[in-house]
Amino acid sequence: MKCRKCGAPAVLELRRHNTAFCAEDFTDFFRNQVREAIRKHRMFTRDEAVLVAVSGGKDSLALWDVLIDEGYRTTGLYLDLGIFDYSVESKARCEAFAASREVPLIITRVADEMGAPVPEIKQVTRRPACSGCGLSKRYLMNRVALEHGFPVVATGHNLDDEAATLFGSVLHWQTDALPRQSPALPSTHPKLVRRVKPLYRLSERETASFAFLRKIDYIVEECPFAKGATSITHKEILNRLEDVSPGAKHNFLFGFLDKARAAFERAEGVELNECTRCGQVTTGTVCAFCKLSDQVKRSRQG
Amino acid sequence: MKCRKCGAPAVLELRRHNTAFCAEDFTDFFRNQVREAIRKHRMFTRDEAVLVAVSGGKDSLALWDVLIDEGYRTTGLYLDLGIFDYSVESKARCEAFAASREVPLIITRVADEMGAPVPEIKQVTRRPACSGCGLSKRYLMNRVALEHGFPVVATGHNLDDEAATLFGSVLHWQTDALPRQSPALPSTHPKLVRRVKPLYRLSERETASFAFLRKIDYIVEECPFAKGATSITHKEILNRLEDVSPGAKHNFLFGFLDKARAAFERAEGVELNECTRCGQVTTGTVCAFCKLSDQVKRSRQG
Repeated sequence: MKCRKCGAPAVLELRRHNTAFCAEDFTDFFRNQVREAIRKHRMFTRDEAVLVAVSGGKDSLALWDVLIDEGYRTTGLYLDLGIFDYSVESKARCEAFAASREVPLIITRVADEMGAPVPEIKQVTRRPACSGCGLSKRYLMNRVALEHGFPVVATGHNLDDEAATLFGSVLHWQTDALPRQSPALPSTHPKLVRRVKPLYRLSERETASFAFLRKIDYIVEECPFAKGATSITHKEILNRLEDVSPGAKHNFLFGFLDKARAAFERAEGVELNECTRCGQVTTGTVCAFCKLSDQVKRSRQG
Repeated sequence: MKCRKCGAPAVLELRRHNTAFCAEDFTDFFRNQVREAIRKHRMFTRDEAVLVAVSGGKDSLALWDVLIDEGYRTTGLYLDLGIFDYSVESKARCEAFAASREVPLIITRVADEMGAPVPEIKQVTRRPACSGCGLSKRYLMNRVALEHGFPVVATGHNLDDEAATLFGSVLHWQTDALPRQSPALPSTHPKLVRRVKPLYRLSERETASFAFLRKIDYIVEECPFAKGATSITHKEILNRLEDVSPGAKHNFLFGFLDKARAAFERAEGVELNECTRCGQVTTGTVCAFCKLSDQVKRSRQG
């Protein structure tokens, strides 16, 4: 198999694009896809400071790598979830990456902000770990960005992540979640920063290949709590569809964005208030993060 | 396991309803679901003559069985697709059922109307058999109903069929097909009869159990052309989701009907014309059936 661009031996076949690339032309292709994402959705400009949420995994470090090389003003944000060795290892990867590229990294411990690390939150809530963890991450990404004056947070969500989330929302027709499924969520309140996903055009296999070719030292292990998560079942199903018909994930996600998403956008927006406790945005009076934090504190006292 | 209604030994567990029934209470439940479907979507009244499209399979014969016992004025329509032994066997089942219940059955041969049976249409078009077959069935159901003065055609599509069709439409976001996905399609033109699916609330397993308990002699074999059909892949995927989370299919279909379908309905309808050849409804000048029929005739002459 030969690279479709230069004719050299190919290292990667991209069936859904019916093409193949050598290492150099693949990394070019990868960066082009990121550029196209940023351009198409006006994610951010070179004048803006971008907070890149990094987990230590292949996706977020690949994203950071591209953004640095593209000349963006980036700062990493590592949220320490306190998930045993997994967090120790993933934090080390982020620190090593930031040091080697000489870029700043902010580290925020969930335990400091919420009152307990993710494993304890899971026990207190008696719900899957992903529930309290996702809530904490979304909250802290936004708060840290605001506190440090970043107008935008970039996350490493790839095509597989986005397609799997969409799949879950569609199976239950979560009409609240569907309009929020987008590569770029604008700021709808002075206390909400923009959220963007510059890797949404690139598959998990492609981000892994890019990270490998760029010799990025990332954590290969999945979060120990991810096992059995619904999103993994959905990813498996989408992988099966992709095997039978290459491009299935892409068509599913892009078809939604192009043809269906608008149908779910509400005429009137949701009313947004500021949490009476922490001042962050909430649809109620006290935000979900503060409520969960209270629950954690009560449980520690009890 | 005991029947939730009478406490007798249960013959069938319905996980998605978290219940179990004895034979008698299950057939009651089954008929109630059909009644509820007819009532909720005002499918037809006891004054109307209903044309029931029957294939000889479990679903359509179970449907006919219920409608007869509910006192509806029904006539069966068997479309002979000319698919080798499969058609011979399935026709015999419909004739035997009609004779035993003393109800009228209309038999129409696709070969007479289209100029060739389904296997030959497949060869001429070089497309999957389901393509020309589906087109012929939809066309002939409507035409036969009109010619005999039936205001409505009922088909045996069950929950699994409907969920699989929806799944296929959603994977590609076929925004033309999505608003047409409904248990009851009204007549939008004097030459289009109403189409209704009174079994849409009942799963394939339930229609099979009903047919078995009612001792209906139906054809168990699938159509030989169905093998490898995309709809079967989609059914398998939905079955997997159902295993993991009972009610998944139901929630997917009913969630769409309740919360999402309206979002896809167009403000303006499609313009409908009468085919200059056969007078049936088409969005163009000559309808797809007449075009395909021409292609078949040309191929026979060529």
